[in-house]
Amino acid sequence: MTLIKSTSTRVSTRPDLTRLLYPSSIAVVGASSNGKSISGQPLMHMLNCGYQGRLYPVNPRREEVQGLKAYPDVLSVPGPVDAAVIAVPAAHVPTAIEQCGEAGIAYAVVLSAGFIETGEANGEALQQKLIAAIEKSGVRVVGPNCVGVMNVINRAYLAFGGALGDKTLKPGGMAIVSQSGGFGQSMMTLANLHGVGCNYVVSCGNETNLTLFDFAHDFLARDEVKMLAVYMEASTEGARIRELGRYALEVGKPILMLKVGNGTAGRRAASSHTSRLTADYTLFRTAFREGGYIEVSDLDELADVARLVLGGKYPRGRRVGMLTGSGGWGVIAAEHCERNGLTLPPTAEETKIRLRALDSTFASLENPIDQMANYAEQYRTLECVLDDPNFDQFMVRSAAGPDVGVWAQRFIETAAKTDKPAIILWASIPTRDAPVRELLEEAGYLCSNYAGRAARAAAIFTDFALKKRKFDALLGAVTTRSIAHRALGLADGRGALAEHTSKLCLAQYGIPATREVLMSLQDVEALALCPVSFPVAVKLASPDIPHKTEADAVRLNITSLEDLKRAAREVQACGLRHTPGAHIDGVSIQEMATGIEVIVGAVNDAAFGPYVMVGLGGVLTEVLHDVAHRYAPVNFGDALEMIDELKGSKILEGYRGAPPADVEALARAIQNISWLIVDHSERIHEIDINPLFVRAQGQGVIAADALVVLKES
Amino acid sequence: MTLIKSTSTRVSTRPDLTRLLYPSSIAVVGASSNGKSISGQPLMHMLNCGYQGRLYPVNPRREEVQGLKAYPDVLSVPGPVDAAVIAVPAAHVPTAIEQCGEAGIAYAVVLSAGFIETGEANGEALQQKLIAAIEKSGVRVVGPNCVGVMNVINRAYLAFGGALGDKTLKPGGMAIVSQSGGFGQSMMTLANLHGVGCNYVVSCGNETNLTLFDFAHDFLARDEVKMLAVYMEASTEGARIRELGRYALEVGKPILMLKVGNGTAGRRAASSHTSRLTADYTLFRTAFREGGYIEVSDLDELADVARLVLGGKYPRGRRVGMLTGSGGWGVIAAEHCERNGLTLPPTAEETKIRLRALDSTFASLENPIDQMANYAEQYRTLECVLDDPNFDQFMVRSAAGPDVGVWAQRFIETAAKTDKPAIILWASIPTRDAPVRELLEEAGYLCSNYAGRAARAAAIFTDFALKKRKFDALLGAVTTRSIAHRALGLADGRGALAEHTSKLCLAQYGIPATREVLMSLQDVEALALCPVSFPVAVKLASPDIPHKTEADAVRLNITSLEDLKRAAREVQACGLRHTPGAHIDGVSIQEMATGIEVIVGAVNDAAFGPYVMVGLGGVLTEVLHDVAHRYAPVNFGDALEMIDELKGSKILEGYRGAPPADVEALARAIQNISWLIVDHSERIHEIDINPLFVRAQGQGVIAADALVVLKES
Repeated sequence: MTLIKSTSTRVSTRPDLTRLLYPSSIAVVGASSNGKSISGQPLMHMLNCGYQGRLYPVNPRREEVQGLKAYPDVLSVPGPVDAAVIAVPAAHVPTAIEQCGEAGIAYAVVLSAGFIETGEANGEALQQKLIAAIEKSGVRVVGPNCVGVMNVINRAYLAFGGALGDKTLKPGGMAIVSQSGGFGQSMMTLANLHGVGCNYVVSCGNETNLTLFDFAHDFLARDEVKMLAVYMEASTEGARIRELGRYALEVGKPILMLKVGNGTAGRRAASSHTSRLTADYTLFRTAFREGGYIEVSDLDELADVARLVLGGKYPRGRRVGMLTGSGGWGVIAAEHCERNGLTLPPTAEETKIRLRALDSTFASLENPIDQMANYAEQYRTLECVLDDPNFDQFMVRSAAGPDVGVWAQRFIETAAKTDKPAIILWASIPTRDAPVRELLEEAGYLCSNYAGRAARAAAIFTDFALKKRKFDALLGAVTTRSIAHRALGLADGRGALAEHTSKLCLAQYGIPATREVLMSLQDVEALALCPVSFPVAVKLASPDIPHKTEADAVRLNITSLEDLKRAAREVQACGLRHTPGAHIDGVSIQEMATGIEVIVGAVNDAAFGPYVMVGLGGVLTEVLHDVAHRYAPVNFGDALEMIDELKGSKILEGYRGAPPADVEALARAIQNISWLIVDHSERIHEIDINPLFVRAQGQGVIAADALVVLKES
Repeated sequence: MTLIKSTSTRVSTRPDLTRLLYPSSIAVVGASSNGKSISGQPLMHMLNCGYQGRLYPVNPRREEVQGLKAYPDVLSVPGPVDAAVIAVPAAHVPTAIEQCGEAGIAYAVVLSAGFIETGEANGEALQQKLIAAIEKSGVRVVGPNCVGVMNVINRAYLAFGGALGDKTLKPGGMAIVSQSGGFGQSMMTLANLHGVGCNYVVSCGNETNLTLFDFAHDFLARDEVKMLAVYMEASTEGARIRELGRYALEVGKPILMLKVGNGTAGRRAASSHTSRLTADYTLFRTAFREGGYIEVSDLDELADVARLVLGGKYPRGRRVGMLTGSGGWGVIAAEHCERNGLTLPPTAEETKIRLRALDSTFASLENPIDQMANYAEQYRTLECVLDDPNFDQFMVRSAAGPDVGVWAQRFIETAAKTDKPAIILWASIPTRDAPVRELLEEAGYLCSNYAGRAARAAAIFTDFALKKRKFDALLGAVTTRSIAHRALGLADGRGALAEHTSKLCLAQYGIPATREVLMSLQDVEALALCPVSFPVAVKLASPDIPHKTEADAVRLNITSLEDLKRAAREVQACGLRHTPGAHIDGVSIQEMATGIEVIVGAVNDAAFGPYVMVGLGGVLTEVLHDVAHRYAPVNFGDALEMIDELKGSKILEGYRGAPPADVEALARAIQNISWLIVDHSERIHEIDINPLFVRAQGQGVIAADALVVLKES
């Protein structure tokens, strides 16, 4: 199911969903006696699983449904009703909603399909009728075209689906909001399989009225919710995604995000290289990184991270202490850790001294610490390493065999003494090991059969922990500007500014450009001395040709007056061939810059807001798309992190004997351009500096070309 | 445990391990009454699990061990003994082996540790004594320092470890050979958890006598073994790895390889760029790709692929047909497929016609095919798509709910009609779904809770299937040479050849080089006309300076006689500064080549044999290590595949308006250099062509620099 955005009655104030989640009474409109049918399932499952509130089947053709007295419509139902499930054919849904309004029912969950999601005229017409009914009635509606809302705590299942039949479902700290009903229920099923209980599961359907964000905000605010799991296919609400991410950091509860539909297709209507180098998914990903999200790629990862969240211990860093009794397990776990950006520092000397004093034999005291004899006493080893200043978190290979129960009890007692988290690696088998495993899980530990999964979960959980720590540390701090607000003196108009004007904007924000002289072709022909010292670049200056390279209207490395004059004639000819009738301002004669070529850009995205981008020029950016993004404004540390994120960033350290480049100046330029787009977001749509040359350390950066594109309206 | 290679008594003929795996009688030397101790476990587990042969405890201090009559030494044991387990302190092992020899016992498994793996003098001395005892006795020995050999079919456990206590262990088509004892047993435990039985599990220990390769070859030859699983930490036997890979393709049984210790540290003693760009692991990986290996990164992947092997259906290609009843599952599975190199082509028109005729409703007839109503009848949908020429394999989201048993039976009947493999995606829970899941698994299907795992397994299994298909197709075909064997006229000597001589070698093998003239500095000073048309390159020619760029002894793009003379003086000065006293042959004046810069190289690796490498010049190779390797010789298709493997290969298609490059000529050059190193492997150690310029289509390649390094001995 995809998010329907064009036509909706979405609410602007944040609703309180308590009456929907904790209804004292539920009407099931269209209730069927057939428990296998969609319209029969809500009643059947609630009766089977022990929902304690009142249930009112509504069905004009029956006296009784599933042993309960049936009513012809919701208005006939005696006493108040908190929420209704609507499971009638699509054509009857608008009337049902209106009747809910008349009956004072605040919430309705519409399971019926057949609306705008069909893509057909009839469905679209019904969608409009539904919207009118919602507006008229004031009822808050989930769906349509959804599998509904489940509260596993009180078994209020305003829903249908295979997962509801499981009477053993346990509530717990996870809440699920999904843009796919079937997949949302699978998320719950598999989380339960890993011992992670879910209290609420919501399928959003068409999101005509209540949206993913309404549920997400409400759930995060509830004490019983420790984390949110979201399956998202599409959203145009970039600002709400960012806002939700910030809220998650504030309340310290992660959003485990499974985002699909991440094609790499470029964004439409892109004037700048920056836009073209930014896939839709990049903007989601940048928002996930910035906010309280943990992006997961599948349900195994989701369950593993959920267990770490439930454990409640947040690592202070990426340094793992590994305890094992099998060299092989140590090697493979260490490799998976390193592959995921975790490190295995050496054991501290004081720890080794304590370990040597134990009545144990070690194949290695170095990390991984490999304990051979008296392995059942591994908890003593753990005790010694808990305070090791080199370790932020632990991975512990369980003792195996019949003594594992005793081992587990001691492990739990020992690990309770530290706030550093630990993961247990253990090739356990449900039929044999279930009780011990449950003991460990209830104590808050992830037990993993697979080192790779464990390492991946630890790594992304650590990302969140560090993000949360940074957020808390900066809370209340004022974001300092890297440069003061400057007026740009932009004239009225829209579209691309000329290179010269674009460079003046940059200059206002502290980014210098190559020296240049704009001359008419006639004046160039008459030159006796070059106004800029050789070598120079010659570029056509035309407001109608923003992408000069594509028009072949640039000549570089000109070293003589004769070549300069020829180049001027050529770029004019090429430009006119490319864009016949283009207005020509003249040619620009520019100093040639040297240094390492990068591209820095900024775009004011309609959905997500302004962002900045940096990439290394040439092959790395254009062929390998080696670029980094952040939302604007960025601080100096973020800008350095962006540069560091580039796969080719080693080039800046001094490549082929070149001196190290002025990375700090590059970071300042990124920071300044981020303020430029923020300060002038009313007017500016896109900015490209391509190329920006980064000179040797201490010598700054210089823009050799620039393009500022104003908003169209 | 790491492989000990320096001191061993390894056998050259391939042993038949039948008596070791199927012993009629076993002596346990050092047998203890304590079933928890290492020396007590073999007897205890064999008695518990029902080994049917005769068991003889050997213990001079006891009359009886675990209810069996004990003997003072193996010579006192009545009747023949097929194999012995040795579990005495290391110091007594050599004597025990000698006694086994005297008693006519052909095989001994030494569990004891304390040999060369300790890294201590005493251990090394004991290792030497052990070797002497093996040589004297003729006994074939597993270990020492291993957890032993398990045959799960007859419960002959010449072994110890936690995994042995499980009486429910099932034998099956997998055999395991591991360089870590503990991890090897975990491999078995977790394979069993996924319904994959193992017949043999071997821990190699120090590999003093019998090695990983002895077991691997023996197992692959056995009918009851359908695949091998190997955990490998280290090996210097590159040639045996390649040989084993070829054998696996011949018998059509994959080797599921979990290789660890894959640091990216460069190889030592590297004279060429090619060597420096080749990590140790690259050579393993290249061997795995070439042979019948499936490289896996963890035990979940191993189990999944094992199930596909047991299914016995090998896909003909990477095109997946996806059947789902949940849009969300379809989207996420499709994304994981594409991320792993599988494709989802459109449904064929004739299939859509058949689907429309069904009594079902579809949210989409396009791939993924999303069936809504009558989803329990999904088997009819499957029936329609089986013959769809667009699909090589299928992923099918199971029907959920109480009808899943009926669905499974119909699925099995329907899928049996095709030889295209299918994977089932199903969020199943052991406590609820075990019987249906077992039914599906016994019928040969992988049921996966996780789309990502399923897609990854399908992708790497497909790699093997296609490799096997290619191998079978080429079997018996003579590898055609791309170029005839040519004499090189190499003089005696060793080390680096001069650039000019190196280029002559290349020319013999069909790779042209830039025109060049070698002159003394005096002759250059006297020049009135440049002997090569401008622009030219000037390089120092000195046998003592093979890496001219590093000595700053190269000048490029010289355009005047004056600059040429200055360049000649400079390169000589720089060379002498870099290597004082170097012998100077003169300077080489060379035509400047243009085109796309690549590096092509070849190295004659001592362990693995000769290989070739290609990379795109400059940043991509030097910073991102974007290179591809194959063992030599390669055919034209392999060479094209190598080029295609480069992340930056798009550059060759025509980048920044350049014409497409002559990729075919580059492939021929790779092919020719692969023959060059093969034909002259007695003399040549390394070859670099750096840079090789690839010109526009139809215009070939040209080497601008070359280095041939002869072997040291």
